Amino acid sequence: MAQEGYAAANGIGCLQDGKPPDETDNANYFCEYAFLYHQMDMLEDEHRTGSYFNAIAWNPDSFKDKVVLDVGAGSGILSIFAAKAGAKEVFAVEATDMAVRSRKIIQAQGLSHIIKVVQGTVETVTLPYMVDVIISEWMGYFLLRESMLDSVLIARDRFLKPGGALFPSHATLFLAPVGSAKACREKQQTFDGERQHFDDFNDAMTNYYGSDFSCMRGEFLEEQRKYYLQTGMFVNLTPKQLASGGSPLLEIDLLRITVEDLKDVEKPLTCSMRPHFVERLSSRGRIQREKERRISKDTQLEGFTGYFNVMFRGSPQNPTKEVIELTTAPTAGTATHWGQQLFGFFPPLQAKSGDVLECRLRIKRQKKNHRLLQLEAAFTLGSEGNVREKREDTWYVD
Amino acid sequence: MAQEGYAAANGIGCLQDGKPPDETDNANYFCEYAFLYHQMDMLEDEHRTGSYFNAIAWNPDSFKDKVVLDVGAGSGILSIFAAKAGAKEVFAVEATDMAVRSRKIIQAQGLSHIIKVVQGTVETVTLPYMVDVIISEWMGYFLLRESMLDSVLIARDRFLKPGGALFPSHATLFLAPVGSAKACREKQQTFDGERQHFDDFNDAMTNYYGSDFSCMRGEFLEEQRKYYLQTGMFVNLTPKQLASGGSPLLEIDLLRITVEDLKDVEKPLTCSMRPHFVERLSSRGRIQREKERRISKDTQLEGFTGYFNVMFRGSPQNPTKEVIELTTAPTAGTATHWGQQLFGFFPPLQAKSGDVLECRLRIKRQKKNHRLLQLEAAFTLGSEGNVREKREDTWYVD
Repeated sequence: MAQEGYAAANGIGCLQDGKPPDETDNANYFCEYAFLYHQMDMLEDEHRTGSYFNAIAWNPDSFKDKVVLDVGAGSGILSIFAAKAGAKEVFAVEATDMAVRSRKIIQAQGLSHIIKVVQGTVETVTLPYMVDVIISEWMGYFLLRESMLDSVLIARDRFLKPGGALFPSHATLFLAPVGSAKACREKQQTFDGERQHFDDFNDAMTNYYGSDFSCMRGEFLEEQRKYYLQTGMFVNLTPKQLASGGSPLLEIDLLRITVEDLKDVEKPLTCSMRPHFVERLSSRGRIQREKERRISKDTQLEGFTGYFNVMFRGSPQNPTKEVIELTTAPTAGTATHWGQQLFGFFPPLQAKSGDVLECRLRIKRQKKNHRLLQLEAAFTLGSEGNVREKREDTWYVD
Repeated sequence: MAQEGYAAANGIGCLQDGKPPDETDNANYFCEYAFLYHQMDMLEDEHRTGSYFNAIAWNPDSFKDKVVLDVGAGSGILSIFAAKAGAKEVFAVEATDMAVRSRKIIQAQGLSHIIKVVQGTVETVTLPYMVDVIISEWMGYFLLRESMLDSVLIARDRFLKPGGALFPSHATLFLAPVGSAKACREKQQTFDGERQHFDDFNDAMTNYYGSDFSCMRGEFLEEQRKYYLQTGMFVNLTPKQLASGGSPLLEIDLLRITVEDLKDVEKPLTCSMRPHFVERLSSRGRIQREKERRISKDTQLEGFTGYFNVMFRGSPQNPTKEVIELTTAPTAGTATHWGQQLFGFFPPLQAKSGDVLECRLRIKRQKKNHRLLQLEAAFTLGSEGNVREKREDTWYVD
């Protein structure tokens, strides 16, 4: 929740550029966003840009005469949408040198008198006053990759007026079991080939150089397993590949969640696929649902997939008239640049009609790079009271 | 030149691990070397590993009862070769966690009593005494990419006894004109497609979102030009693709060159392709050659290529009995994991039989990452006294 006293002490004053990203974080993450081709990739995602356009343009009451903050503005497109929807003033905060280009783009639209581009991380800029609306496109693969939501929440706590709205306002991460996925079989084949590869390598090292590397076989296969079998794949699935509908794993109310909640890896998230679901509202505003769906036929489960949606509902005090949804589900028809993340079961699980797949998942941030994720999951498959298969593993969103 | 006083003050004492790489340098560069698949890629380059093996195993006099330092030891393979060739003691310095694995590999060969793995950058480790031989595989694309030679030279100045030898001892960077290269034509086609891509993008932005991005057209094409047309391509050329033999552009005597020489971007290097060459020995030990070769037929020149060799000659006081060469030339038959770097002329130059192609080249390090290179080159093509084509551009080794 925005705290005016804190914000006044920590970010309100003269409009001032902030600091560039930390050098390592820039090398790992920010640098990519300074390229136009990358901005264009995102802008050309019609479902993405079109959903933001509709969320803003179809809700002019949410923007008319409002002060708006755009977190991670990139090309400045969301700021432009907000200005065209009637915003009085827009602060477009961008950490990379794309800020310089967004100034030109904004000038070309004749909107420089409304939109002020502020270069620096949102954690370090200073704004002249609190804002009515924060807009941001912060979602990464599996919703949380990139950890950019942290910056939006910090911006909220520093700059959002009480009663102000976040665009989007809500986000949900879904899991669904995948029946058939060629990508998984290909990964398995490649991994299997790596066993032979190592043995051939070791034969050559021994025969030609008298150096026996067999002590590395286990570590090599572990490294390859992580890369080929435990790393999420970027895919665009079609509905027929899903073995049941998706279940919401994590629901986020952007007005209430905290950065600490996002780092909280100690509370495993639960998701099961059965016919009914129970909704639980946690004390911090996170909704955990247990959705029940049965597997609809005898089938292999080659993996599971993660995807998300975000909703533009405004705030309780200032709800949007038109509620817009941006979804990356396989059922959406329009492929997005996020695709879905596919995680394989190796070997596949053998499901029977009527089975229930249950999952307990913990989402951690990777130690070496906090913008990447590590999923610790335990699956059980079977009919009620009769668990036939268990699978526990770690998967990575790299 | 090794300076005993300096070394004694700066690195001789107890055998001590050093510091890990700087965090950003690790993210950009070192991290890759901590993977076994990457070590195996290098070990499986038969020309590379076999040349080092021969250089060491065929010259036991250079190693018998010697103290050896291996800079950037990786898997420890060169240290193992040195120990098997009779070295009394080997210090295998490795900055990444591959050090932990190399200890296991060395133990599996029964060589732990000879080879001591020291983890840390060679700039920060401490050795108990000076060494007789430094071995290292430091070469990157276009010889100098990665700037790892800096570390070898620092190791030389800190730890090499007067009269000691470097393996390899010499390196030469070559340039050659390329007649036909499909890779260049494909890059040109892709780049041409990007013009249309931008126009389609801008039409969509204007029509759907009322936002005109045409002010970014020039910057976008500049960005794409850099990526597609000005960045060196990894290729494995065949001899028939060369329009003339290669000309040495830069010769390095590892015993004499300094880190400052490598950073020296103010003295343009010259190379021309005509029938004779003149050799000039610079005051700092760098040999600049002007090699003259004529173009052998009417042909397009679609680009130029850079490749290198290194020689294992030992030191003047301790020359190797068998001089081994490791070359990455297109003429070598065996493809190496370095391939060659190919830089395109867009559009191609039109050469006539008997023409001379001359080049002045400056090798800079990129500002944003000192391990990557920026080449500023000026080419002229024509017969004597009649320059028909000039081409000046910047190319990148990324």
